[in-house]
Amino acid sequence: MAKSISSLELPLRARPAETTLTDWLYAELRAAILDGRLKRGVRLPSTRDFSLQHGVSRGIAMLVIEQLRDEGYLMSRTGAGTWVNEKLPDDLSLSEQVCAPAGQGKAKALLPTARERLRPFQASDPEVNLFPIDVWSRLTSRQWRHATKSLLGSGDIAGYAPLRNAIAEYLGTSRGVQCSPSQIVVMTGTQQSLDLTARLLIRPGDAAWMEDPGYSGATRALRNAGAKIIPVPVDAEGMNVAKGRQLAPQAKMAYVTPAHQFPLGSTMTLERRIALLRWASSAGSIIVEDDYDSEFRFTGVPIPALQGLDEAESVIFIGSFNKVLFPSLRLGYMVVPDRLMDRVLRLRFETDLWPTSINQAVLADFIVEGHLGRYIRRMREIYAERLIALQYSAAKHLGDALRLSGIQAGLTTAAFYRAPIDSIAFERMAASHGIDASGLDRYSLRKQKKIPGVLLGFAAFEPRAIDRGMQKLAAMLEEY
Amino acid sequence: MAKSISSLELPLRARPAETTLTDWLYAELRAAILDGRLKRGVRLPSTRDFSLQHGVSRGIAMLVIEQLRDEGYLMSRTGAGTWVNEKLPDDLSLSEQVCAPAGQGKAKALLPTARERLRPFQASDPEVNLFPIDVWSRLTSRQWRHATKSLLGSGDIAGYAPLRNAIAEYLGTSRGVQCSPSQIVVMTGTQQSLDLTARLLIRPGDAAWMEDPGYSGATRALRNAGAKIIPVPVDAEGMNVAKGRQLAPQAKMAYVTPAHQFPLGSTMTLERRIALLRWASSAGSIIVEDDYDSEFRFTGVPIPALQGLDEAESVIFIGSFNKVLFPSLRLGYMVVPDRLMDRVLRLRFETDLWPTSINQAVLADFIVEGHLGRYIRRMREIYAERLIALQYSAAKHLGDALRLSGIQAGLTTAAFYRAPIDSIAFERMAASHGIDASGLDRYSLRKQKKIPGVLLGFAAFEPRAIDRGMQKLAAMLEEY
Repeated sequence: MAKSISSLELPLRARPAETTLTDWLYAELRAAILDGRLKRGVRLPSTRDFSLQHGVSRGIAMLVIEQLRDEGYLMSRTGAGTWVNEKLPDDLSLSEQVCAPAGQGKAKALLPTARERLRPFQASDPEVNLFPIDVWSRLTSRQWRHATKSLLGSGDIAGYAPLRNAIAEYLGTSRGVQCSPSQIVVMTGTQQSLDLTARLLIRPGDAAWMEDPGYSGATRALRNAGAKIIPVPVDAEGMNVAKGRQLAPQAKMAYVTPAHQFPLGSTMTLERRIALLRWASSAGSIIVEDDYDSEFRFTGVPIPALQGLDEAESVIFIGSFNKVLFPSLRLGYMVVPDRLMDRVLRLRFETDLWPTSINQAVLADFIVEGHLGRYIRRMREIYAERLIALQYSAAKHLGDALRLSGIQAGLTTAAFYRAPIDSIAFERMAASHGIDASGLDRYSLRKQKKIPGVLLGFAAFEPRAIDRGMQKLAAMLEEY
Repeated sequence: MAKSISSLELPLRARPAETTLTDWLYAELRAAILDGRLKRGVRLPSTRDFSLQHGVSRGIAMLVIEQLRDEGYLMSRTGAGTWVNEKLPDDLSLSEQVCAPAGQGKAKALLPTARERLRPFQASDPEVNLFPIDVWSRLTSRQWRHATKSLLGSGDIAGYAPLRNAIAEYLGTSRGVQCSPSQIVVMTGTQQSLDLTARLLIRPGDAAWMEDPGYSGATRALRNAGAKIIPVPVDAEGMNVAKGRQLAPQAKMAYVTPAHQFPLGSTMTLERRIALLRWASSAGSIIVEDDYDSEFRFTGVPIPALQGLDEAESVIFIGSFNKVLFPSLRLGYMVVPDRLMDRVLRLRFETDLWPTSINQAVLADFIVEGHLGRYIRRMREIYAERLIALQYSAAKHLGDALRLSGIQAGLTTAAFYRAPIDSIAFERMAASHGIDASGLDRYSLRKQKKIPGVLLGFAAFEPRAIDRGMQKLAAMLEEY
């Protein structure tokens, strides 16, 4: 039977003044186990003895012991007490030297921290609670079961071939994108695609058309590449191409979100699309089409991609699964004209190689086996309901004070207010009331042109949370 | 019984003038199998028939057939001959659709390179057949079982907190790196870290010290950032710091591989390390320490990181798990001085956000539960054996004609030959004999300075394959 020791015999060092009881007890016990002051197999005193003799609450003692047990330092069985694990995981003994007794902050950081809950109307996240984790997990296990050397070894710079096939088929069917798998490059997401595209197309000082207002991620990518950004105004028909031609006819590229303009929500008309393609073809320029949330369109016909109209190999099409499935997936793609493919792959190779093969393989299965289609259809219904809830709650609590954009698509919507304040001040005020509402001026390039509106995300919130959020906004505007 | 065809019936296209016999025969046979000109189950002619009717040597015919058999296109049994595999691997049939008949070069590139068996002495891949897939898969399932909203949702730009803790502890213990988890940024691998670092530190025209010869991935990252690359010679003591000071005292950064210089293998001496740190501190420059395969040191004491000696916050330390575990994992890290952290995170946010959370969580468990330590110890033994096999086979088959570097570390070694040819010619000749041997001149920045050596990878090859490879090299040099 293991030898028991009393709490008094526990070789713990005194608690430094600035350290919390929990941190101190955790770090001390762990260090004592690691450097052998607490021998393997030795039984610990009861939490009651702990709490009496070291002046910590039983709750703290239990918490710390539970943590150390989860980490493999301790073992316990109901009725038999808790003892130091006979077989410590190797790396725990390795970590011995790192665990300086003073490094309290370090030990504390070792405890995983829980993330904060999203606040309405945080705009960037989709709903993730309904994602079929079971399906994904099953597909993952299956891939690992059959994992060959090739799945572990070096991947293809352009991406895992079966995934590229699946994406090409999916885009052809659902987005009207014309491409062969050989034009697909798998990326980690939209930001990486924007960054690579800007670096590929822009030499410092080159002009680039940018939607105004427009997506700040694209603006940042262009700035980092040294582009001279040409703000081209956006209206209800999308980017004003004639204005762009007038401002910078020889721009090297144009960034657009034709399906659902970010942040205003308008859809680019066919006339504008054709005008844009004509310009690109005649100027030898490239259109970067960011198709960021077009999977979710709640009324009317889905708008086929601009890329599908292109006959001059002048469109790079960018999409991502990170909003459609879940943000931490980190898989997106570009559809690249043949003539640019070699240069794209070279830069890809020089900047990041390929995304994790196993995740690409699982995503390929998820698409090919129909889960993607099913999940999108399901989420489309749910997001449509939530948009209706947003409109209903806005009308109920705010009436004329807030007008939502009429566009029935996406995960976010623009909302315009009457109050005579600028949108950044509105955003700040909302934040102090527990509400996320991005001021549209954040996305504005010509700073003198103020837009009295904010961006509201509705996808990640249930109708009840949406209604409470709108109540708070109403209260805030009344105060004002 | 399978139908046999004679060599004359073989539907091979004529050989283009600029293609070697080996490349032509390999590409033709493979294409014929993939597009069905050579039906499954059909028996191939003997190598003797091949050599007579197509004017290739029997050696070449055998080499090509062996290669295609290793890749799963062909089957053979002693006495029964060779025939086209009845069941081609999945990915091969999948890639069929991609295989445009015209785009030979491209179609070839589309076939996932990982599927092809590595040729000795391919330098970049580790052994992956011994990776404990079962453990990794179990940890993955467990993470998915407990996956919370936070694991699916937006991640931390710096990386998943428990992984950062695990990395900080691991580096402290095993590499003598002094850091807190708050200095760790999780990346997809070394190339992404090099790219980000170069973009962060270099404005077009800024000087950067680069080891000469040195790692081409770093050279590419510096070139892409517009750096004026200053080649600083490397000798048995590592980078010649005095020479660097003389050439460009005000360089913005210096790239070094102090633990195991790439490609020569030398370890930077303490004197040089101190001189480099002094220079960086006085010039206000940053040292980028690429610690690429230092986990594997087979004799003597492991060399602690240069970063551990730094007292002026002037070192960015770069490492990766892609070689230590498996290449398609795509997880690495940077250790960043506090004063640079904000800028690093901003650029990270603007270029790629964070790596897949689930993979980060699984890796954290893999480290904390001791699997990483165990796996490294196991592979260290295996790689040490393989290096010995390489040395033994080289001595046996090549004697004085090839001298291996004496350094007992890493996954690759430099080898110097006596033959009076330049290293790129050596590389090409070896390739035509089925051997990968990167010419050291590839890594040379001052092109006039020729190095009669090649880089030989030994990690991914069993002693038998190593011996066969050395035999081929010996045969090649005899011919020569």
